[in-house]
Amino acid sequence: MALPHAAPAQPIDVAPLGAALATTPTSALFKAGGLEVMRLVLPAGKSLPPHKVDGEITLHCIEGELELTVQRDGAEQRQRLQAGQLCYLEGGVVHAVSGVIDASALVTIVLRR
Amino acid sequence: MALPHAAPAQPIDVAPLGAALATTPTSALFKAGGLEVMRLVLPAGKSLPPHKVDGEITLHCIEGELELTVQRDGAEQRQRLQAGQLCYLEGGVVHAVSGVIDASALVTIVLRR
Repeated sequence: MALPHAAPAQPIDVAPLGAALATTPTSALFKAGGLEVMRLVLPAGKSLPPHKVDGEITLHCIEGELELTVQRDGAEQRQRLQAGQLCYLEGGVVHAVSGVIDASALVTIVLRR
Repeated sequence: MALPHAAPAQPIDVAPLGAALATTPTSALFKAGGLEVMRLVLPAGKSLPPHKVDGEITLHCIEGELELTVQRDGAEQRQRLQAGQLCYLEGGVVHAVSGVIDASALVTIVLRR
């Protein structure tokens, strides 16, 4: 993480990356008390493997298209998320995310303490 | 609130409202455990008066332009937020928000329990 995290009330640019997506890594934007936000960059065909976090999360697709795979009651539920769409997951739910079209997304995580 | 809240993993459209902004009210998108997300609609000149919440918040300007006024150490700090910009505030910070240009924004609130 080369850049310092943002301070409170400081504007952070989260507009689509466009051509810069291919050379932009996933990065943490800030962590503050009970909340963490990162910008996830997933080129087409790249994935985050199945994982879970304790707190609730939102996934907001900023550009491109993502596929979210949720494991619930022993079954897999797949959901596409396009630019301009957001969804949430409860805490503790195992999920994976992959890029269908070169994508970036805001991931907001509630931190359990 | 006429519409039911979204379910987990269900895509919610949060793209710019465009011409529909003038006739779209602020609405809750979901509340889940420790997290609440709403879409705030603030036409130019309209304001949310100073208020605070216990948990951290993010304010993500989806379209238009907002002015965020934060009260900190007895002084007011003003910050413009344009479409594609996001900022956060710690819990308990008194803040007001007004529309500079017809605006909508996602407001994410960590719920303290």
